[in-house]
Amino acid sequence: MKRNVYLDTVDLEEAEKILRSQFIKPLYEESEVISVFNCLGRITKEPIFATISNPHYNASAMDGIALKAESTYGAHERNEVILCEGADFMYVDTGDYIDQRFNAVLMIEDVIPKGEGQIGTIKSVYPWENVRVVGEDIACGDMILTSNYRITPVDIGALISGGVLELEVYKLKTVGIIPTGTEIVNPGESLKPGVIIDSNSRVFESMVKETNGIPNRYDPVPDEIDKLRKAILKSVEENDITVINAGSSAGSEDYTVSLIRELGDVYIHGIAIKPGKPTIIGKIAGKPVIGIPGYPVSAYIAFKTFVLPLLNPNLAKKEDVKIEVTLSKRIVSALKHEEIVRMKVGKVGEKRIATPLNRGAGATMSLVNADGLLRIPKASEGYEAGAIVEVELLKPVDLIDRSLVSIGSHDILMDYLNDFMSKARDGYTVSSAHVGSLGGIMAVRKGETHIAPTHLLDEETGLYNMGFINKYLKGEKIHLLKGIKRWQGFYVNKGNPKNIKEIKDLFDKDVLFANRQRGSGTRVLLDYILKKEKYESRLINGYDTELTTHTSVALSVLSGNSDVGLGIQSVANLMGLEFIPVALEDYDFIIPHEYINDPRVQYFLEKIQNTEFINHLKSIGGYELEGFHMSTIEVGGT
Amino acid sequence: MKRNVYLDTVDLEEAEKILRSQFIKPLYEESEVISVFNCLGRITKEPIFATISNPHYNASAMDGIALKAESTYGAHERNEVILCEGADFMYVDTGDYIDQRFNAVLMIEDVIPKGEGQIGTIKSVYPWENVRVVGEDIACGDMILTSNYRITPVDIGALISGGVLELEVYKLKTVGIIPTGTEIVNPGESLKPGVIIDSNSRVFESMVKETNGIPNRYDPVPDEIDKLRKAILKSVEENDITVINAGSSAGSEDYTVSLIRELGDVYIHGIAIKPGKPTIIGKIAGKPVIGIPGYPVSAYIAFKTFVLPLLNPNLAKKEDVKIEVTLSKRIVSALKHEEIVRMKVGKVGEKRIATPLNRGAGATMSLVNADGLLRIPKASEGYEAGAIVEVELLKPVDLIDRSLVSIGSHDILMDYLNDFMSKARDGYTVSSAHVGSLGGIMAVRKGETHIAPTHLLDEETGLYNMGFINKYLKGEKIHLLKGIKRWQGFYVNKGNPKNIKEIKDLFDKDVLFANRQRGSGTRVLLDYILKKEKYESRLINGYDTELTTHTSVALSVLSGNSDVGLGIQSVANLMGLEFIPVALEDYDFIIPHEYINDPRVQYFLEKIQNTEFINHLKSIGGYELEGFHMSTIEVGGT
Repeated sequence: MKRNVYLDTVDLEEAEKILRSQFIKPLYEESEVISVFNCLGRITKEPIFATISNPHYNASAMDGIALKAESTYGAHERNEVILCEGADFMYVDTGDYIDQRFNAVLMIEDVIPKGEGQIGTIKSVYPWENVRVVGEDIACGDMILTSNYRITPVDIGALISGGVLELEVYKLKTVGIIPTGTEIVNPGESLKPGVIIDSNSRVFESMVKETNGIPNRYDPVPDEIDKLRKAILKSVEENDITVINAGSSAGSEDYTVSLIRELGDVYIHGIAIKPGKPTIIGKIAGKPVIGIPGYPVSAYIAFKTFVLPLLNPNLAKKEDVKIEVTLSKRIVSALKHEEIVRMKVGKVGEKRIATPLNRGAGATMSLVNADGLLRIPKASEGYEAGAIVEVELLKPVDLIDRSLVSIGSHDILMDYLNDFMSKARDGYTVSSAHVGSLGGIMAVRKGETHIAPTHLLDEETGLYNMGFINKYLKGEKIHLLKGIKRWQGFYVNKGNPKNIKEIKDLFDKDVLFANRQRGSGTRVLLDYILKKEKYESRLINGYDTELTTHTSVALSVLSGNSDVGLGIQSVANLMGLEFIPVALEDYDFIIPHEYINDPRVQYFLEKIQNTEFINHLKSIGGYELEGFHMSTIEVGGT
Repeated sequence: MKRNVYLDTVDLEEAEKILRSQFIKPLYEESEVISVFNCLGRITKEPIFATISNPHYNASAMDGIALKAESTYGAHERNEVILCEGADFMYVDTGDYIDQRFNAVLMIEDVIPKGEGQIGTIKSVYPWENVRVVGEDIACGDMILTSNYRITPVDIGALISGGVLELEVYKLKTVGIIPTGTEIVNPGESLKPGVIIDSNSRVFESMVKETNGIPNRYDPVPDEIDKLRKAILKSVEENDITVINAGSSAGSEDYTVSLIRELGDVYIHGIAIKPGKPTIIGKIAGKPVIGIPGYPVSAYIAFKTFVLPLLNPNLAKKEDVKIEVTLSKRIVSALKHEEIVRMKVGKVGEKRIATPLNRGAGATMSLVNADGLLRIPKASEGYEAGAIVEVELLKPVDLIDRSLVSIGSHDILMDYLNDFMSKARDGYTVSSAHVGSLGGIMAVRKGETHIAPTHLLDEETGLYNMGFINKYLKGEKIHLLKGIKRWQGFYVNKGNPKNIKEIKDLFDKDVLFANRQRGSGTRVLLDYILKKEKYESRLINGYDTELTTHTSVALSVLSGNSDVGLGIQSVANLMGLEFIPVALEDYDFIIPHEYINDPRVQYFLEKIQNTEFINHLKSIGGYELEGFHMSTIEVGGT
């Protein structure tokens, strides 16, 4: 039965339909009978019925006396009924058996002792009052769980109470994971330029574990058709599902698709989603074989979308919880695919504000930092800033809502502050977006950040931040926290091979400079110095190459992509670069007045001024800490 | 250091504060270094930094040629730039190393082959265009994760890409679980009246596993102080956390609290939540010892609220996802405690409608059936019907939203239909509320159900359902599905010991009848017959005892609580009772017009008429299936 149903770039919906119709039924045939004690997370094959009732006897729901309800009829304040122990009643505690002679319980509070085995009462009870009757919770024969049901802890309690000791569940699914590509090496192996560490297969392993499957990871297979054929056949033999993770280099994907076609059927090659487009869906020996693209973000999205559903036959996904967010900026997307964008989300005021993260398919940190995923449908060109959209949560909403939102300039002290807050275990964290100082001021203006770290030098006054605040925050009431100063200077490699000492050395012909982007405080500082000393910036080699963080400038120097860059000392210290001081600048925090009493902001103010944290910053070096002070500023104008 | 800080019924907030301040720090001291391959779900002790950059070399992001960006400057449509292989450029594939001589990649589409190692281009590129520069994703020295961070699959990818092979995480926590109570037996042991099967400890085990802890369950300990003392000391010795699950009988709780006081400190005895009030929080040998109440629902809530947070030091809880719902009925709560109510949720029209489930502390099935939890604060008396409140989700919202909401009469065919739909794996399920036929019609009127199963006999016409539809659904447009008839009759034990044959036998003095509640179709049928044959209902022994389902009537007869009841044949067949037919009735479905095209309703209509399903119903017996037909009814009046 050789059918090469090769479909060229199908829509996501079509791909999911093919996946389900081809594979779910054959995957969910084999079952096993297991103990109720080990059935957490397993999926029922058949409905499960109670074999005993719960309670299995008429049980007292109170401490008191068991009696016939009829014997209390007529009791009221002026008519005490007298009853004899044994004949008319017996004492019972909660949970005790009510014997067949009785049909109700009178609470002990309503029992008046009369001595000699007699009691009186002025209360009447109705039949079965204060009795948990047989089967009140579960009746013998009740359907406790349906088929295709994933068992949770409380279900185990109900199964046991219903007398179920063993039950039939589907076998766990095994997933063979084959990393491929000649350039792929295992973690820990030596790194030559051009080789790529296999991390995807380890992410897949964990995703399978989390979804109650059994991962079987194989060693990376080079791009040799015979070796790959052997590996695929072995995995198909040994597993229910096989995943081939193509390398990102040219050719890997072609090998995969031609081998699946040779050994079985290719149903889909190319799906209209981004990232994840080059996904392949095929079948060998009746089993699903999925080719997953190499870039980490594409790999994650494709695995989540096309492999995990095979481990969950009842479709529902816990992570499908969606929340409404307001976009902080415009997102443009092409019409030709559904695009999945990683989003950072923070709750500022009453709104949850979402900002897209790096959309590159290689940006693994964008996955770590993402709070949710935004899906932009195929037919949509994207969304405007301010649009209200839904994102699928990747993190607990509680964690997101307790994050301090910081938008503005990049400094590693924000990472250390985040860690310092995490260590305190009060549930607060920092969610930082590095958009440069000016970007932070704009976020303050739009009310989209709790704090904005900024270090913008006013060219006219030579003062930090106030010039920009007066210019861009007219009519706003803000608070300004001052107290941290940091050294800016040149990053050069050990031994200072190009002998850089001062600004004029940047103009040497054989010196390549790594610049920062416009709007960043470091760029403003450079331009200020160049203007003051009347240099022409366009004569600097590399002036047009804009990098967005201190770290990327440091790495550019460290790797030889450039000879020198301007940045803060702490990063140079951490990366082992030499540092030539140029200027001491104020790294301040703007806090909009409306958020000053927000518990996250108050927590931040407490922690950043904490002695232990200050001492940690001093140990990194590059900071001058002179005592904090806050000022309240009502900016004039409109 | 003997301090018996005994607090009498503290508020939940206070209890949580004590729990955190006393236990989190000592619990999170010990750490271990583990492989990155096994760190899923573990919690970091210290921040984790990258030891290599990703990419670790300048990598081509495209297939094309690597060159110096400067060599393309000036290229445009009328100025083709010519470059020589080797000197000016080299061919690269995606992921290839860009050597130090070059700083950009020109895409292969823009390369014009000229032969003899030469190419031309009319496109220029800027420095580092189409190059993934060293550290673009992760820079050596970057903080990848903070302290106190729970590791997810994508984090493992970032750690590996950042060169982290091992990392320091907190040790997993062990939880000793001691079931206590003389009445407690292990599942599978023989059941005498008064004994209770231990199911709580198995639920706790699973909850611990789900939260990444290690459960150690001990065998049930009888209510003997020496044995319990020994068990507690052993568990405290062997585990980080000890949980004592009191039996529900009097005295269990007292033993626990006095032993914790003897061996250590009791901080709290009694917390103002319902269910869960008798919770005890204490400390022995510096370790938390928590006493949990015995009723299953109390046990679940108390364990979730006071034990699970000890396994998660960063506070955030995945299950804290909340959704807004509209209450279908009033919920009253006392001012003296925070009450946690299990809720059934269904999406009908645009609204999510929530209905409280059985609030009894022994109702394990209410936990299985609950979609979410509603918290009624201490100071609140509850909510009115129609109020919009938030519930914490216990099930995937996707699953909830794909449920067909059925409110009305109880018939086990609805359980079988739910299972039949689950088996089809299309993601649809049935969410049934058994409120009787009349309750279903009221839900239709309020627009709160997709379908209402009903079997109400009109006393005047002797016809089913139309009389009530005309009376209660004035001005509504509905659809009525007819086709299922079912036998109603008497349930009696094997051999029919009281020799019941017809209605008049219910009036025998030694016959005890089990009645159904007012508004149920079965009750309407009984009252119709009694009236028609001119009997006086109040002369029936047990007429005032109202049970709410066929199953509970059957169990009442089976257990000897009563001698006879009226109910449907299918339940008698399943429970092994004898059945004496009384009447054949129409079991119809009302569908409001506004939901007739809802995919869940359409799915229901398809499945209930499915031959396989019909055959299954026939095999149970008690149904007459005559071919379905639908009618559209516009009810007159207002």
